[in-house]
Amino acid sequence: MKVDLHTHILPRDWPDLEARYGYPGFIRLEHLTPCRARMMRGDTFFREVESNCWDPQKRIEECDRANVTVQVLSTVPVMFSYWAKPADALDLSRLLNDHIAGIVRAFPTRFVGLGTVPLQDPELASRELERCTRELGLAGVQIGSHVNDWNLDEPALFPFFQAAASLGAAVFVHPWEMMGQQAMPKYWLPWLVGMPAETSRAICSMIFGGVIERLPELRVAFAHGGGSFPGTIGRIEHGFNVRPDLCAAVNPHSPRSYLDRFYVDSLVHDPEALRFLLRLLSADRVALGSDYPFPLGEAVPGTVIESLADLSANERERLLWGTALEFLGVPRGQFE
Amino acid sequence: MKVDLHTHILPRDWPDLEARYGYPGFIRLEHLTPCRARMMRGDTFFREVESNCWDPQKRIEECDRANVTVQVLSTVPVMFSYWAKPADALDLSRLLNDHIAGIVRAFPTRFVGLGTVPLQDPELASRELERCTRELGLAGVQIGSHVNDWNLDEPALFPFFQAAASLGAAVFVHPWEMMGQQAMPKYWLPWLVGMPAETSRAICSMIFGGVIERLPELRVAFAHGGGSFPGTIGRIEHGFNVRPDLCAAVNPHSPRSYLDRFYVDSLVHDPEALRFLLRLLSADRVALGSDYPFPLGEAVPGTVIESLADLSANERERLLWGTALEFLGVPRGQFE
Repeated sequence: MKVDLHTHILPRDWPDLEARYGYPGFIRLEHLTPCRARMMRGDTFFREVESNCWDPQKRIEECDRANVTVQVLSTVPVMFSYWAKPADALDLSRLLNDHIAGIVRAFPTRFVGLGTVPLQDPELASRELERCTRELGLAGVQIGSHVNDWNLDEPALFPFFQAAASLGAAVFVHPWEMMGQQAMPKYWLPWLVGMPAETSRAICSMIFGGVIERLPELRVAFAHGGGSFPGTIGRIEHGFNVRPDLCAAVNPHSPRSYLDRFYVDSLVHDPEALRFLLRLLSADRVALGSDYPFPLGEAVPGTVIESLADLSANERERLLWGTALEFLGVPRGQFE
Repeated sequence: MKVDLHTHILPRDWPDLEARYGYPGFIRLEHLTPCRARMMRGDTFFREVESNCWDPQKRIEECDRANVTVQVLSTVPVMFSYWAKPADALDLSRLLNDHIAGIVRAFPTRFVGLGTVPLQDPELASRELERCTRELGLAGVQIGSHVNDWNLDEPALFPFFQAAASLGAAVFVHPWEMMGQQAMPKYWLPWLVGMPAETSRAICSMIFGGVIERLPELRVAFAHGGGSFPGTIGRIEHGFNVRPDLCAAVNPHSPRSYLDRFYVDSLVHDPEALRFLLRLLSADRVALGSDYPFPLGEAVPGTVIESLADLSANERERLLWGTALEFLGVPRGQFE
């Protein structure tokens, strides 16, 4: 069994959002052939995608070839639209969430869904989160590494995390709107340098801001193996130790004491980096995630995990599906 | 023997730079007691420092207590002043370089010097680099992770790196003006998240931009164990493999093939992270560095290196002094 915690999906079609909301900045899909489309923002090209980005049958075929039992579906982060008017972002979130829920209902043994919420308005976001979990049957939500000018420790966001904890909704944190994007436009550096930093920013904010401390029942996972956080935990912990005036102002506990309080996906593309992650967090905290269907992902989900010959059977199971299901709060029997 | 590659020093006093250059933004030192001073920018407090930041005798005492034979001196990165008028940054660089050279001359068996240069004007920078190495006896320079809007692959900077290669000058790259600084003001995150990202940005820029490729004789080292670069090498390499249109546009070689072409210091604050670094780069590429005298540094330089019980004698020597001297181009006999 393999559960891929980190995959992205879009509807094949959606309304013209610029026309619907009356201002620009939203993404549209421009279909080129039956199998290829371009994501466009106004006249600006964002990314080319293939039909595996929207076609569940195509996804199931590819899963079957890669022995992936279940994909966890979430939107493409550029769709978060935290910058938009809250009511419009809610409308768009509902549209995307209804789409994902429909796919999960159609193929309940192959997909689990994570919704998206208008986090720029935490009250609206909490209500949509409740709809996602109670009405749509989604396991939780995917959120960004920050929300406009707010980091994830922003007090305004805390009621949303409280709602997630009390609803038992899983929260998957994905980097977006990468720091330094304008300053390093070449060589894909926003994706290669900025995204790992965004994830570390998100983890640090939730730890130092006491969000994880105050919500022991919150299940939160971070993409890309936690980004640059695990590899720099020594620096982060040392900073906490030597400048408590800055780092312990809100939460008096060491960041290292939270390594068993959150999850990460396995997407580090390197056996040695995965070993490092397993030593730091243990297999109980690392879940297969591939970033399917995007090229920066792992082409055959689980390849790096399966390359580690010295894993115990239990570690292997945790990595390939057990940790993901625990994070999602979904029993294995659901897929049988 | 221990050589500490990464230490910072300031003069005890310097002229009023605002008055000297006629505009604000420069750092001054406000002495509070004989042993304590505040670094101030205008009326804005930057950092409190102690006399070990300027007093070579105090530094030697502390080195003796920590069994550090040699400190490599470089300025505090906030002094780079790449934002200032080039002639003024040159003037300030000369002042700082003359100061470091004076200390090295006074205690030639205890200190090696790295200068600073006005990189916003690569021609002036190259000339000051030449003065540093040919006239002042410095081993090279410390530079920032970027220079205003330029990354280190900027063509305008290439003649400077050429000059360093042909002069045999060591180039130590230190993060500064951290990406995301304004967006994550709390919990010291610019230092804990932004700095590692800055260093990865610098390494990636020098690799993807072909600087290291084109200058095989250039000796370059990066602070803080290479920041987030080593822990995310899998992602960076994978990005190169799947999007050569973006990542290989200038340099067709994989970033992983450059792991034996640059140096890093050992400042990762964590034995497991240091082991990971050694597996990735080998002890031939990692040099003891402590960030002395600042609290985010390693209080007793070499503690984490010496905590690794399974190092060979050769690895230990490389880490504690051999790699640093190779990078600096300085023979061991100079300190006897």
